[in-house]
Amino acid sequence: MLDRLRAIVGAGNVLAGADAASHSRDWTGSYTWSPLAVVRPGTTQEVAAVMRLAHEARVPVVPVGGNTGLVGGTKAPGQLMLSLERLNRIRALKPEARVVVAEAGVVLARLHDAAADHGLLLPLWFGARGSAMLGGALSTNAGGSNVLRYGSTRGLCLGLEVVLPDGRVLNLMQELHKDNSGYALKDLFIGAEGTLGLITAATMKLVPAPRAHATATLAAPSLAAALTLLNRLQEVTGGLVEAYEFMPGGYMDRLAQLRPDLGQPFAERHEVTILVELGATAPRDAEPRPDGAIPVVDLLEETLAAMMDEGAVLDAVVARTEAQRAAMWARREAAAELALTRGPLVDTDVCVPLDRVQDFLHRMPLRLAALDAGATDLTVAHLGDGNLHYTVFPSTATPELLDAIRSAIEDVVAELDGSFSAEHGIGLSKLASMRRRKDPLVLEMMQAVKSAFDPLNLMNPGKVLPQNPEETRP
Amino acid sequence: MLDRLRAIVGAGNVLAGADAASHSRDWTGSYTWSPLAVVRPGTTQEVAAVMRLAHEARVPVVPVGGNTGLVGGTKAPGQLMLSLERLNRIRALKPEARVVVAEAGVVLARLHDAAADHGLLLPLWFGARGSAMLGGALSTNAGGSNVLRYGSTRGLCLGLEVVLPDGRVLNLMQELHKDNSGYALKDLFIGAEGTLGLITAATMKLVPAPRAHATATLAAPSLAAALTLLNRLQEVTGGLVEAYEFMPGGYMDRLAQLRPDLGQPFAERHEVTILVELGATAPRDAEPRPDGAIPVVDLLEETLAAMMDEGAVLDAVVARTEAQRAAMWARREAAAELALTRGPLVDTDVCVPLDRVQDFLHRMPLRLAALDAGATDLTVAHLGDGNLHYTVFPSTATPELLDAIRSAIEDVVAELDGSFSAEHGIGLSKLASMRRRKDPLVLEMMQAVKSAFDPLNLMNPGKVLPQNPEETRP
Repeated sequence: MLDRLRAIVGAGNVLAGADAASHSRDWTGSYTWSPLAVVRPGTTQEVAAVMRLAHEARVPVVPVGGNTGLVGGTKAPGQLMLSLERLNRIRALKPEARVVVAEAGVVLARLHDAAADHGLLLPLWFGARGSAMLGGALSTNAGGSNVLRYGSTRGLCLGLEVVLPDGRVLNLMQELHKDNSGYALKDLFIGAEGTLGLITAATMKLVPAPRAHATATLAAPSLAAALTLLNRLQEVTGGLVEAYEFMPGGYMDRLAQLRPDLGQPFAERHEVTILVELGATAPRDAEPRPDGAIPVVDLLEETLAAMMDEGAVLDAVVARTEAQRAAMWARREAAAELALTRGPLVDTDVCVPLDRVQDFLHRMPLRLAALDAGATDLTVAHLGDGNLHYTVFPSTATPELLDAIRSAIEDVVAELDGSFSAEHGIGLSKLASMRRRKDPLVLEMMQAVKSAFDPLNLMNPGKVLPQNPEETRP
Repeated sequence: MLDRLRAIVGAGNVLAGADAASHSRDWTGSYTWSPLAVVRPGTTQEVAAVMRLAHEARVPVVPVGGNTGLVGGTKAPGQLMLSLERLNRIRALKPEARVVVAEAGVVLARLHDAAADHGLLLPLWFGARGSAMLGGALSTNAGGSNVLRYGSTRGLCLGLEVVLPDGRVLNLMQELHKDNSGYALKDLFIGAEGTLGLITAATMKLVPAPRAHATATLAAPSLAAALTLLNRLQEVTGGLVEAYEFMPGGYMDRLAQLRPDLGQPFAERHEVTILVELGATAPRDAEPRPDGAIPVVDLLEETLAAMMDEGAVLDAVVARTEAQRAAMWARREAAAELALTRGPLVDTDVCVPLDRVQDFLHRMPLRLAALDAGATDLTVAHLGDGNLHYTVFPSTATPELLDAIRSAIEDVVAELDGSFSAEHGIGLSKLASMRRRKDPLVLEMMQAVKSAFDPLNLMNPGKVLPQNPEETRP
């Protein structure tokens, strides 16, 4: 097998044994494994040849990009890992048509830079953008702060190139804004975490890059007030809100403890701290006035001032320099570090309807206290999407307690008509939730799709769809 | 069978024989048939019971809503038609969360009215909105003028309720903005034209209704100039363009001939006439100034004036009253009447990349002249999406010529990396195009999906996916 792989991609691009050590754990450290080998094809044709070979030999294939996932989606014990890192060409960037055609192994930050050269933005933006790759972002339908304004990764993708489990290349590449010729196959592969086929390239929409930002950190008396403010800002600006990030009091406390270097926005402690950012492209919003003032910044400041008069904002600071803006974002982007650097923990990524975020935060502490009086929690949220990253640190680490906590969170999410997985995906870590919470008929139809595309169950087997109880263990 | 249907929905809601006559042809008159019966369930449970019965009896089911489709998607010879007309409740409208939950049989115009009561808009807008129903719009992923700003029907839908071919109810209803728990089943049913299951209800996004419109008709020296103007308008307004509709000289000629009552925008004849509309929600754009001027109208006027100075606009008239705006839209919305009231014809609905629309219009007359020197054509386009409705009136109506013309159009579309079906769907009328033009591997995977959801081929059989040559005949 290894020899045949070497014949396809060259000896230097088949890593086994100690050479594959860097591909034997995930970013969080929760999952470790020993792959059969890591193969690094450099072209779609090489990917196809590798897949044909694996298909003939009935060897399971696990795709990997930047390996920044949070749900164990790249665990590959004894399986063949197919790394997309060498499939990293930007095939075309068309500024007039506002599209970029890129391969799966292109790091997001490189796409951001390439688009910025033309005054454009790929609005797929999250903490790991410096190492996450396009293919992984598509395979997980990755979210982030900008979904609020620009929609999901699925919505940003116009075309896909996919290698099927048997090595055939499915060409769904196009740059059309409308196409109703048959079923939405493209949307199936996006978010399938490599279980239906392997994404090798995509055509992505670009948007005009904001020419001015207005960024502020503010304190609100309640979440309800914060949501009123969001609606007001959208109304006043005509939908320019690019990010609306919620950091509760407990988050700010932990930040003060673990990252005192990042500072605190306010002298007083507040229960509801919000990072808001507007992005303006139009000259009437973005071009400095004769006195140097930026209209969109004034608009934000005026709206916050009016809301303070109404009591809906308690305090606010507007960024006046790029450094101030960066400092505000650093406090938000420390979230992964704050949450994941202390184990054991139960980390979740849930979504509830916008008007029920408060309910979630009211109900959880009561449930948690009943299970484990010593537990603490940490929340940070993309409030504009109803998407909460809620992490629990239990006082002991028995599998039973961890599972009971996860189940209690799922209970509350289900009561509020939410989803137990908003933007990180399922991988291995949420298989138990899929089994417990997903409608059995929905699971049955998903399994029917899986069988239609991958009848031999060779593509990232055991991920996304629950099969047996054992596979959920890290 | 009929008795058992009557037992489910009541005798008055099973139409057969002469009573079913109104359900025996499509809107265009191109397709006629005699259905086994028409059944009109009033609840999802009744739909499910009908589907279970049909499944047991192996009777094919064809769903029908407003029957405004253009591709023969409701033809049901000897088959059971399931009309959604009585499944017409608006289950909930939540202005704060900006969503509406409605059943498949709700007419779009009713949803528009209900949303308008709260200052909101369901941006799913096309000529047939007065009779088209939500279920049909979803099943065909219907397009329209507003896709440019607000995206596709698929993108506007947050949740779906579907009855599967065997009568089980698949609950994909939710109002979440992020959900990554498994495959995108919802997106599969949208645009599947009832071949995978039957949509009974949906949760749709609403957007703030524009509080001011700026509408103009303009003449441009070329399509390239028109596209430059579109980009300029998007830049200057920060993306407020709601519609950008192209009417060539030949379209305006035909309008003058057949609908002289609608008038002409300019004394001179122009090759490129554009209807543009901006929609503004923000007070800084929409609120009248002390002198009564509306800022967004001024912005449009100033931009058009600047472009006239540059020679990129030849003439323009800005609507000053709602009546003037309505008159401009009436000229555009006469398109279906202008195209379809004279047979025989080949009507198409194609999409090409934005920068290749001009290529399409250059190449087609040459190909057409070679096939039929006496043929004439008619074009109207959603230019901002690259979506052209291109209709040919051949001098004779032999099936061979009609087919050769359709094939020539497909040739040009394929040369330009376009799609032969942008927004109307496949139904029966584009099955031959699917067979000829769609990548066989893509067709194979679509068939695999069909078999996974509808193994007995009972749901709107023979539509969307080509099976044998006979079925493409009207």
